[in-house]
Amino acid sequence: MIQRPRGTRDFGPEEMEIRRFFEDMMRQEAVLHGFREVSTPIFEHTELFTLKSGPGVVEEIYAFQDKGGREICLRPELTASVVRFFLNDLTTFPRPLKMFYFGQCFRYERPQAGRYREFFQFGSEIIGNPTPETDAEVIGLAAAIVERTGLRDYRIRIGHIGILRELLSRTGVEGDEALPILQKLDKKMYTEAEDLMTQAGIAPEVMTEIVETTKITGPISVLDSFEGPARDYIKEVCDILLAMGFSNVSVDLGVVRGLAYYTGMVFEVDAPKLGAEKQICGGGSYSLAELFGGEKVFSTGFAIGFDRTLLALQTEGAALPQERLTAFVVPVNDMMRGHAFKLVSELRRAGISADIDLMRRNVGKNLKFAAAVKAKYAIIVGEKELESASVTLRDLSSGEQSLVSMVDIVAKLK
Amino acid sequence: MIQRPRGTRDFGPEEMEIRRFFEDMMRQEAVLHGFREVSTPIFEHTELFTLKSGPGVVEEIYAFQDKGGREICLRPELTASVVRFFLNDLTTFPRPLKMFYFGQCFRYERPQAGRYREFFQFGSEIIGNPTPETDAEVIGLAAAIVERTGLRDYRIRIGHIGILRELLSRTGVEGDEALPILQKLDKKMYTEAEDLMTQAGIAPEVMTEIVETTKITGPISVLDSFEGPARDYIKEVCDILLAMGFSNVSVDLGVVRGLAYYTGMVFEVDAPKLGAEKQICGGGSYSLAELFGGEKVFSTGFAIGFDRTLLALQTEGAALPQERLTAFVVPVNDMMRGHAFKLVSELRRAGISADIDLMRRNVGKNLKFAAAVKAKYAIIVGEKELESASVTLRDLSSGEQSLVSMVDIVAKLK
Repeated sequence: MIQRPRGTRDFGPEEMEIRRFFEDMMRQEAVLHGFREVSTPIFEHTELFTLKSGPGVVEEIYAFQDKGGREICLRPELTASVVRFFLNDLTTFPRPLKMFYFGQCFRYERPQAGRYREFFQFGSEIIGNPTPETDAEVIGLAAAIVERTGLRDYRIRIGHIGILRELLSRTGVEGDEALPILQKLDKKMYTEAEDLMTQAGIAPEVMTEIVETTKITGPISVLDSFEGPARDYIKEVCDILLAMGFSNVSVDLGVVRGLAYYTGMVFEVDAPKLGAEKQICGGGSYSLAELFGGEKVFSTGFAIGFDRTLLALQTEGAALPQERLTAFVVPVNDMMRGHAFKLVSELRRAGISADIDLMRRNVGKNLKFAAAVKAKYAIIVGEKELESASVTLRDLSSGEQSLVSMVDIVAKLK
Repeated sequence: MIQRPRGTRDFGPEEMEIRRFFEDMMRQEAVLHGFREVSTPIFEHTELFTLKSGPGVVEEIYAFQDKGGREICLRPELTASVVRFFLNDLTTFPRPLKMFYFGQCFRYERPQAGRYREFFQFGSEIIGNPTPETDAEVIGLAAAIVERTGLRDYRIRIGHIGILRELLSRTGVEGDEALPILQKLDKKMYTEAEDLMTQAGIAPEVMTEIVETTKITGPISVLDSFEGPARDYIKEVCDILLAMGFSNVSVDLGVVRGLAYYTGMVFEVDAPKLGAEKQICGGGSYSLAELFGGEKVFSTGFAIGFDRTLLALQTEGAALPQERLTAFVVPVNDMMRGHAFKLVSELRRAGISADIDLMRRNVGKNLKFAAAVKAKYAIIVGEKELESASVTLRDLSSGEQSLVSMVDIVAKLK
């Protein structure tokens, strides 16, 4: 039998109801914040991602040649696509441009627990000005979305890539030379980071200061011992978040996000209950457009791992939505079939979810089926009842039955 | 500058609001009809589609090898995937299984007006029993969806592949021999069909009868001259549709849908205003599961071309939804920034869409921006007004301004 491709998933009705519920919730929250949805293709020119993340990224993505010989790939993330879309078509829009997206992304790696080859991301980007307000607005949307899902145990940790860059720059290490060091620090690979710093000629005591800095976490006051524009900036971001009522925010200078295009503020949201793979959201301010051949623009964005967020909610035992069919219509015999179809159609037109026997089963089997698909009511269309323009309404939880006039049935079920 | 891949589209905010509106509408209608959503991966093993449509299909799809040497492809449609999902995981679910889906599909062909390499389909499948009720239920959902979109000019044409098969079978032409003839008749390529029928030894007068049969269209009464199970079946389907209140239904024996797995009823929905590419929906009853190595099950389904349906609505000048931001909050100076962020957050928490100055612009520029993004109101947060716990509310259509107390602002904007 043909199977689904390795590392992918099918989603059945129960899962899809949950997934659409949270997808809609995230979308609604973004719209409340003045963000608007955009959508880009599932596949892109591979170059888009090699320009962003280096040629090595090809190893980790679904890259292939199309029949025209073009190098294309399934998108591994959406920020690059949104920035490309901006450059192609949206540069004349009033700024700031506040956009969000939801969709599939793909990575080619060994499938493992909780990591799929096809996965889903919800994210947002603001293209505008480098202000703390912009960064706070982006973090605020991420926080509002996580809050609205009902997740109880989560942490927002904010850092600033500029603080470590300032420390490194004082030793003369800047730009491309600083990047591999930052990448190791991001991954908490201290020995490797120290080796690189030694090679770069950084003195041991400065090295210690740099490593210790990445371990600084806590309330905003942990920044008091620092000076400089990065510290002032991050403090402003936090003040705005406090004004917006988000108190679950801490500083973590170990959030580095080791990619060259991050320019300043960086942040992550964790759900500690998820253990080692606890990050559910990551973002920061970045500068990508000029890599793609466009103007240099300031952007801030984030992506939420949709699958991992749902996993975190399940781990907390959150109450997940379940949709239920309102009415299942059962004709008692073939003669009643036309009447039953007329009724089911009237219910649907009135906005009541309704289903009907399609299998020509008897009443007993139909009632069993209605219970199996968790319908709330069965409506039995019988000859005698129809003479008085009535049907039998049966509550499938309590088993109670009553005769209800056809003219009242919609009101009764609404 | 990097461009989107050829034949694909990006969708900006206005387009996405329209698309999500109709996507949600279709989803809601399906749920009202007791269908439940399923979702399958963007890519599948290529074999799934060569088994369904023959090896030639590889020429028309995005097929490639993944790094593990597997033949995979971007799905060209979703019925095969849904049937595969059913066989993999859903065979123990109570039947009939009523499923719907919405998602991207892909084809590799020369891009042309209205035909994209990435396109969107909404569709449904019922896996159950071969009853006219099942077929009517599927057509009924398609009709209800098209009706609900507001499309005025559309036609549902129902045929039955069995009527032509019966005529051919009387001449001894059956199964694989009949298929190429049916395919030519489906495409109205009468000369080619006649050549094939001549080769198969069919007498000229029977040939004429067969060709004339494919031209029979009109109300259900056009079937009166026929006999046999196919004719009785299609009449029952139409009677149920009438009971459900769908009167925009006609018989068209030229609807053949020339693929081997169609077994009986076939139907199409046209929007005549679209001209040559007028079909917006197609479906029928089919038997696919056994081709994929599973049990033989009876299924009926349809797919709606989402893009073409939207095009048809546009062609009719239908009123398309437009979302508008309710409030844009403007602090008069830097001191008011914190208060403004507090207010914008309160509005959002109350379910009012609200945005705020992120660019540190002056009041005049902010009011211009608020008008440019079509906000309904601007809320100006000023020092003097704040002393009396008030803000200035400005209606951006009329230009009217009033002083509103902070405690009343949510109720005022709800």
